Amino acid sequence: MCDTCGCGDPNLVPVEVHESLFAANDRVAAHNREHFRGHGVLALNLMGSPGSGKTAVLEATARARTGIRIAAVSGDLATDLDARRLEAAGIPARTITTGSACHLDAEMVHRALHHVDLDQLDVFVVENVGNLVCPAVYDLGQHANVVALSVTEGEDKPLKYPVMFRKADLVLLTKCDLAPHLGVDFDALHRALEATMPEPRWISFSARTGEGMEAWLAWLSGRRVTAAPAAAAAR
Amino acid sequence: MCDTCGCGDPNLVPVEVHESLFAANDRVAAHNREHFRGHGVLALNLMGSPGSGKTAVLEATARARTGIRIAAVSGDLATDLDARRLEAAGIPARTITTGSACHLDAEMVHRALHHVDLDQLDVFVVENVGNLVCPAVYDLGQHANVVALSVTEGEDKPLKYPVMFRKADLVLLTKCDLAPHLGVDFDALHRALEATMPEPRWISFSARTGEGMEAWLAWLSGRRVTAAPAAAAAR
Repeated sequence: MCDTCGCGDPNLVPVEVHESLFAANDRVAAHNREHFRGHGVLALNLMGSPGSGKTAVLEATARARTGIRIAAVSGDLATDLDARRLEAAGIPARTITTGSACHLDAEMVHRALHHVDLDQLDVFVVENVGNLVCPAVYDLGQHANVVALSVTEGEDKPLKYPVMFRKADLVLLTKCDLAPHLGVDFDALHRALEATMPEPRWISFSARTGEGMEAWLAWLSGRRVTAAPAAAAAR
Repeated sequence: MCDTCGCGDPNLVPVEVHESLFAANDRVAAHNREHFRGHGVLALNLMGSPGSGKTAVLEATARARTGIRIAAVSGDLATDLDARRLEAAGIPARTITTGSACHLDAEMVHRALHHVDLDQLDVFVVENVGNLVCPAVYDLGQHANVVALSVTEGEDKPLKYPVMFRKADLVLLTKCDLAPHLGVDFDALHRALEATMPEPRWISFSARTGEGMEAWLAWLSGRRVTAAPAAAAAR
């Protein structure tokens, strides 16, 4: 089992350890979700490989000046570089330093929420640790999973990392401006997404050129959460 | 703890579970290493993010027709795409399908070795699961760790994923042909590597143009392992 993250061969990890950790995580995730809903805040779990452009998506969204009020937490093993980039772009952000863990869990997000005024928000983004495997498995209390998949990563990634793409509600095909230099086979990429995602939905996106921004903002608007006052008192 | 990989918040995973798994893994890793050394085979653990170009490095190495006899195993959650690419390039290769786990462990490699004739090899490459966190933690019995870091991933990755880069003996800065389209700040990237790697060593590499191939082959030659006959009988 990982010194850093607790990863292990699932055959070697006692089943009861798995189950109790999952049950504990799911309870906190349900609490987080209730909390977001109570304040009418859409919560997103933004995942993807290291360097897939998760932070750049949020920076570009902030630059679009849509009036959508966004805040974020960024998970990383070390450094607060992403949160500083987001703050500089106008998105209030905090860092969750995992030190070792290769993903965020519901309790980490819950602790971070104590520093966030949800009444001032429309969208709360959890920018997960860069990892195309483990983050998909933990419920954080989000309403939707968004995966940033850079076109530089290759067309086969949905097939090779199916756990992540089975859980994705939306895939942003980032760095599309680089596609002409790569010879990306978009048909193959789309087929891989269709073969893996239960409800295939993707947007070709470039933080640099603005490609896909309109579709991304329309998707965000369509996902808006209406506050449920009764639940708001649940905290 | 992950349904897929056993990842968990290290604070929640019992210490004794950690320790017994690590001890078991290290025993098998030592056995693997003895085995490689007995046959005079250099064993490499090739790691990097999804889409960082690990397979492409090996394909390009095969195309260079150096006479170095290489075989490989490729770890992936699903598909045998990488092993098929390697076979097509002339590198005997097998797939280790992890199904769920986000990294390989020594036992998985040990089982794969039963199908490999080490007497016919100079170099055995374990192409790990695409993941910049967990694979660094497990000893597989390799002699050296090579990390493929694509220049598309951003200059900050060594700082943000220090566990991986602290363990790296060599970093291949892959997809260097794309650098002009990205505005890569190589000074910042090199500083990040120097700040993280105990003995900083990197090669700018492009599987497409051949940049860095000569330096990579020289590094490989410098690492050649001489057979230790006494150990060869240890199996």
